[in-house]
Amino acid sequence: MFKISDEFEVVAKIVAGVTHQLNNVFSIVDEISGSIQDTINLGGNLTAENLKKKLDKISHHSQRGKVLVKSLNRFVHLRDTTFREIDIIELLEDFVLLHSHFINQKGFRFATCFEEEKKLVFCSPFYLFYACHQIVWNFLNIKNENSEIKISVLGSADSLKIVFSTILPKESKSDFNELIVSLGQIVSSYNIGVNLKDEEPYATVEVCFIHNK
Amino acid sequence: MFKISDEFEVVAKIVAGVTHQLNNVFSIVDEISGSIQDTINLGGNLTAENLKKKLDKISHHSQRGKVLVKSLNRFVHLRDTTFREIDIIELLEDFVLLHSHFINQKGFRFATCFEEEKKLVFCSPFYLFYACHQIVWNFLNIKNENSEIKISVLGSADSLKIVFSTILPKESKSDFNELIVSLGQIVSSYNIGVNLKDEEPYATVEVCFIHNK
Repeated sequence: MFKISDEFEVVAKIVAGVTHQLNNVFSIVDEISGSIQDTINLGGNLTAENLKKKLDKISHHSQRGKVLVKSLNRFVHLRDTTFREIDIIELLEDFVLLHSHFINQKGFRFATCFEEEKKLVFCSPFYLFYACHQIVWNFLNIKNENSEIKISVLGSADSLKIVFSTILPKESKSDFNELIVSLGQIVSSYNIGVNLKDEEPYATVEVCFIHNK
Repeated sequence: MFKISDEFEVVAKIVAGVTHQLNNVFSIVDEISGSIQDTINLGGNLTAENLKKKLDKISHHSQRGKVLVKSLNRFVHLRDTTFREIDIIELLEDFVLLHSHFINQKGFRFATCFEEEKKLVFCSPFYLFYACHQIVWNFLNIKNENSEIKISVLGSADSLKIVFSTILPKESKSDFNELIVSLGQIVSSYNIGVNLKDEEPYATVEVCFIHNK
């Protein structure tokens, strides 16, 4: 039921998810543009106000597309450096955006709980994203009535941690624990730790930084 | 001077190149939409014909974005199957589109010479793209007065081959030959062969399929 994907699979999934979102953006833009054309062609009444509203929508969706594309660009560059100081908040904002296709598709929603202020940690940026992805991706395989995945950033300076939480049925606990142990073995050499906290009915996974600067 | 990138680097480069192209598309759409808004706000004269022309441009660029996104989606799914029958023409069309950012940036241009008709081969689709990428990416590092990279598909059935060609200065020949030998070692287990044909002043690399169906 639970599974760790390799690095390549993670990148392929994220990119594929974003292509669906981008395709959607282009379809909407094209549709709005087409609907204005139709009104003109049919000799319909197109007030300046109405036209402006539709153009605002086109601009809004173009901006949305740009933000997505920027996050995707940052994501594919995460592996350029093995270790560096990274802002958790920026990474999590990109993370949420780049996963929204899958979250919607599976009927889940993110509840994020962190301030906009920078929170710096020292680790491998790619493997931090990778660890977060494995946690959330596996949360999506839990049949869940609640359907909420909570992401919080807690602590400060050398005790910073990212906390992911969702409801986990009793029968999945031991399998999920195995997953987190395996994940911990992979990411520990990148200065990333993962721990499962047993707080029934929640699966609460803490991502921490073993030797923060 | 010449270098083989690993699988992960290739994906990261392709995605990064496409994000630049997509960012460009969204900027153009947003700019056209903004220019119509400006005309309305300034009480300028916006004829139906003029408006339709601008909307056509928005639709044109949205369509271009959709095509790009579709190629990118196909690209990230290439590694889903190790071996399968693949249409070289579709793969090359995606290849050309997904490389156009780098080609423009380096002042090169593609000259493609193949019909639209399907040409099927049996190999690893990802490593076919990978081999083509290494050839073209290294061509871009040749200081080249000609600046043209010719891509042709020759032969039929079990003798199909893809031919990449550009001008290669004499002093780079031995290095380039080494690259092709190394590349051949990597891709041979995926039913892909690469051979450098010495046809001065050209570097002509043939990609062939060792045991085609």
